[in-house]
Amino acid sequence: MRKEFRDLAPPEAAHEAIAWLDLAGDTESVPLREARGRVLAGRVDAALDVPGFDRASVDGYALRAHDTFGADEVDPAVFDLVGVGDAGSRPDVTVGGGECVEISTGAVVPDGANAVVMVERTDRVGGEDDDARIEVRTSAAPGDRIMFAGTDVAAGERALGPGTRLTAREIGLLSALGVDEVPVRAAPRVGIVSTGDELVRPGEPLDAAAGQIYDVNSYTVATGVEEAGGEAVLYPHAGDDYEAMEDLLRQAAEECDLVLSSGSTSASAVDVIYRVVEEQGDLLLHGVAVKPGKPMLVGRLDGSAYVGLPGYPVSALTIFRTFVAPAIRRAAGLPEPQAATVSGRMASEERYAEGRLRLMPVGLVEAGPDERLDGTDVGGDTLVYPVDKGSGATTSLVEADGLVEMHPDTERLDAGEAVDVRLFSPDVRVPTVVGVGEDDPALSRLLDRLDAPRYLALGSREGLRRLRNGVPDLAVTTTGGDTQFPTVEVGAWSREWGLVVPDGNPDDVTGLADLVDRDLRFANRTPSSGLRTTLAEALADLAEERGETRHDLVSAIDGFEAGRRAHESPPRAVLAGHADVALGLRATADALGLAFVGVGEETVRVLGNPERAEKSGVEAFAARVGAMDDLLADLPGYGRPE
Amino acid sequence: MRKEFRDLAPPEAAHEAIAWLDLAGDTESVPLREARGRVLAGRVDAALDVPGFDRASVDGYALRAHDTFGADEVDPAVFDLVGVGDAGSRPDVTVGGGECVEISTGAVVPDGANAVVMVERTDRVGGEDDDARIEVRTSAAPGDRIMFAGTDVAAGERALGPGTRLTAREIGLLSALGVDEVPVRAAPRVGIVSTGDELVRPGEPLDAAAGQIYDVNSYTVATGVEEAGGEAVLYPHAGDDYEAMEDLLRQAAEECDLVLSSGSTSASAVDVIYRVVEEQGDLLLHGVAVKPGKPMLVGRLDGSAYVGLPGYPVSALTIFRTFVAPAIRRAAGLPEPQAATVSGRMASEERYAEGRLRLMPVGLVEAGPDERLDGTDVGGDTLVYPVDKGSGATTSLVEADGLVEMHPDTERLDAGEAVDVRLFSPDVRVPTVVGVGEDDPALSRLLDRLDAPRYLALGSREGLRRLRNGVPDLAVTTTGGDTQFPTVEVGAWSREWGLVVPDGNPDDVTGLADLVDRDLRFANRTPSSGLRTTLAEALADLAEERGETRHDLVSAIDGFEAGRRAHESPPRAVLAGHADVALGLRATADALGLAFVGVGEETVRVLGNPERAEKSGVEAFAARVGAMDDLLADLPGYGRPE
Repeated sequence: MRKEFRDLAPPEAAHEAIAWLDLAGDTESVPLREARGRVLAGRVDAALDVPGFDRASVDGYALRAHDTFGADEVDPAVFDLVGVGDAGSRPDVTVGGGECVEISTGAVVPDGANAVVMVERTDRVGGEDDDARIEVRTSAAPGDRIMFAGTDVAAGERALGPGTRLTAREIGLLSALGVDEVPVRAAPRVGIVSTGDELVRPGEPLDAAAGQIYDVNSYTVATGVEEAGGEAVLYPHAGDDYEAMEDLLRQAAEECDLVLSSGSTSASAVDVIYRVVEEQGDLLLHGVAVKPGKPMLVGRLDGSAYVGLPGYPVSALTIFRTFVAPAIRRAAGLPEPQAATVSGRMASEERYAEGRLRLMPVGLVEAGPDERLDGTDVGGDTLVYPVDKGSGATTSLVEADGLVEMHPDTERLDAGEAVDVRLFSPDVRVPTVVGVGEDDPALSRLLDRLDAPRYLALGSREGLRRLRNGVPDLAVTTTGGDTQFPTVEVGAWSREWGLVVPDGNPDDVTGLADLVDRDLRFANRTPSSGLRTTLAEALADLAEERGETRHDLVSAIDGFEAGRRAHESPPRAVLAGHADVALGLRATADALGLAFVGVGEETVRVLGNPERAEKSGVEAFAARVGAMDDLLADLPGYGRPE
Repeated sequence: MRKEFRDLAPPEAAHEAIAWLDLAGDTESVPLREARGRVLAGRVDAALDVPGFDRASVDGYALRAHDTFGADEVDPAVFDLVGVGDAGSRPDVTVGGGECVEISTGAVVPDGANAVVMVERTDRVGGEDDDARIEVRTSAAPGDRIMFAGTDVAAGERALGPGTRLTAREIGLLSALGVDEVPVRAAPRVGIVSTGDELVRPGEPLDAAAGQIYDVNSYTVATGVEEAGGEAVLYPHAGDDYEAMEDLLRQAAEECDLVLSSGSTSASAVDVIYRVVEEQGDLLLHGVAVKPGKPMLVGRLDGSAYVGLPGYPVSALTIFRTFVAPAIRRAAGLPEPQAATVSGRMASEERYAEGRLRLMPVGLVEAGPDERLDGTDVGGDTLVYPVDKGSGATTSLVEADGLVEMHPDTERLDAGEAVDVRLFSPDVRVPTVVGVGEDDPALSRLLDRLDAPRYLALGSREGLRRLRNGVPDLAVTTTGGDTQFPTVEVGAWSREWGLVVPDGNPDDVTGLADLVDRDLRFANRTPSSGLRTTLAEALADLAEERGETRHDLVSAIDGFEAGRRAHESPPRAVLAGHADVALGLRATADALGLAFVGVGEETVRVLGNPERAEKSGVEAFAARVGAMDDLLADLPGYGRPE
């Protein structure tokens, strides 16, 4: 296999190239107590017998079996008691004819004895100690009630084979064998190099004004490496400087079995890596005919394998999980995780015609018990929707539960069509309830009380649009009630809105008229926000009052058009000195220590898809909305609608 | 709920008692990089905008949108290039009318600009640096190709809720937010106290003659605790002394949220614990109406919860997993693992009538592609067989894949009957092939070459008996060929057997006659062993030769009746000085450094269940037997049958 990066390589070629890189791991020895989850590197044979001695399997008396021949209830045999044998002590007596030793479960059967009779079949007669005699009311055969040495495991037997993953039960068996160090497959070392001058590691100070952003891919991919059984090694940021990058890649290649780069979306950083691998190593593949595999690189660098991942986090994780994680698992000796695939049905139609395999990140939502979709019965099914549209780069990371493969010749998946979803991990759970809509602090707290909810704060309009398209269970909206499609109201609360100004209200703002009439910098919400709609309606009323057009009023407000996304965003612009007045809630002003000029109240309505009304997650949500008065009492300006 | 231990408590009462003990965990803060698998203790709201600035989403030119109005291919708009903006650096220029700045993906959009035009829609004209001009061949609207600050995540938004398990994707989102410490649920601390004077921890020297055994339950249960998300704390062995035990239990109760005891099967140790909990704490339950739950204790001790597990390892793990692990997971905030249940069919009939719930440990085996069982089509199904019979205490640990619940009123499960199996862990895999039979060193090595095989070295007779009963795929036997039921031969090899004697053969043993005629201590195999059958046949031949009865010959051999289980066991008796001559293989004598007197060769046959012949695991086994000549060449006395 040689360089073939003029055209995009087929996905199989990427799998082959990575397999060909051969990450085969080493062997290491670990203490048994720390061996959980590791994979045996070689066979373990028993080095000793378990038990290591002939062991009494009941409480009773050890004796010579033939002394009991013929004994029964009517005609018991009588023995002299000549000693006591407890578990864990060496019996210092030999059992002769007509003699017996009192013995506990687990104790060593003394020399001379070849059977144990359980205490229930005996009677103690005669004196207390020295002259005690035991009547045995049954006959015993040689070997009765004795677990002979090596019965459980015999020395020399094969105990566990190579490739065995060590869980509680295998660790139990190894304990029995007295093994305290086990040879296991070493976790492949995977170096992670992130590129891009703009990246800052979490926890370090961020200069956003200079265009810095926190590095998402390093920790995400490192966690993916660990989930796949590898050891992740994070290297410091290299920036886009060719020499620094070359040094770093060489260092990582020397110390690791595999080097992954990921991070910057900038073409220059990718170019630098490309050149280093091309000049110092061996580039096998550049670009795979997979959406999103175009920027993927596969090569070899100073003896280490190298894979370059796309920069967009969901793409990086998708490519990592599809092509790289299986190779790491193979090197670590771990099997592909079971139960990582679920069957689902498309929640809506999805078109695609790009001629390459699409690894489509999808979210999951449970259908209602009797739901029908375009005539298909999907009651109780898992519905599947694509998440790479309209979500932010990072938030789609947590919205995507898995991948659906759309083959190059698939032009369309219909709503209701059956698809297989490869889950991002076997413990991904389908959210109990999925909502889209307004960003609201009472809602944030309400969600804390629910088990595994999913909520996308994309605004009232987007919530209603998606509800109509059949994906979420709920839309949370301040503009609702007059939808063009059937909904059920799941609950509602009210919130006071108005103008948020600096502490002490230095500009002496008193109402909306100040925005229009005075030279104040205003921070608005995005058009999708229900709060902005409410503001627009209030301005329309003001325009009518004044006999002006709404357009004239709005044009007079400095900053009306630009919108900020979440409920805290405009007030935070005031806090940062970027604006004099912001659209916001009394509760937000209070939380941020800002002053507030109330304008009105609006109702936040939770509208549900009627087909999902009986879904347990929706019922739980409704119950929580009904019981949220304590939350509303805690938030200034909140209450129930009149 | 109060003491109610006169009768066995129903299983629900045990669940309730443990739930009532309330292991609710604490909260702790961990670095993000170490947070994988942990569970968020509280909501995390975004403390900053992502991105934190208006960000170019393509490579191109930042400019004022209205300067491009009307521009197209035919009539481009021309701009003065006044600067360059790279990712991660602060733009030091303000864009005025008719000006543009060259900008990279991810860079800060400079002041004055409100749109970015992608480079593909532009041409560079004019001079190199100072007087470069850019022709823009398209119109841009305000906001085009800009990702505004907070578009992905806005400060104040709810990012993740309490109870979220942190995997790669959540760690990615938290990275984006710059979070480097996260509040997570603390793992509940679970103390493990093991009792019994006879127990020795793995790695320490063992005095088997004094009845010591390695402690199996401490490490097994500790691993189970960790698998359930708890932190296991092992306490030193307490022995059976009342005061020492009391001190130890008090110390564990003070340091842990839950104390588990397990270990000794001896009644006295259980009595001591029982007394300590009864006197120093609060005993809620003593004995549960579950097989194997009779010795289970539930109580409270100095503020810590306390559960006493049975001593037999499979029972300890069964009770732990059924009653204790769910409580630990709850305290750790972890969900019950998915995919922990599989549907199967009983491989054979199982009777039971003890009037209490039976948690039956079972092994799994995959049926053949067209297999029928008592007329039921079970093709490709997972077959289920009980493992608590006939297996050693420890080996059954690794043979048991999960549990089937038999309800108190179930008297029988029929062969082929559908049952649900609760797997011991979600990553339990059904063995690819299951064999039972002769212990053989070539076979041990052969098994190393197979993926996930299961083999029980219980001897030729037991192998054939179980094969007839329909459980294993294969029997490995030296007595085969003349079975009373249909089998297919999967492969065969031969091995030289004879008498193993001390190095140098000090007694000058020359053959079987020495066993009969001389005063030598002999170490034999168990009656289930095919090798013993082969010996018996050779002795019968000798008897016929001499005109004596086989019985006379056998009676003259000191040690003929007592049998040792595995192929190394009798030679090890020679090694230890317990016997002068042992039944064994040339390869075993060689491996142990002993001398060998050859008597004959025997064929080891692998016989298969005909209904499983096309099962892939059996085909893989057959292929490996066919290709094992390298293994046979490595073992003295091994070859192919003539």
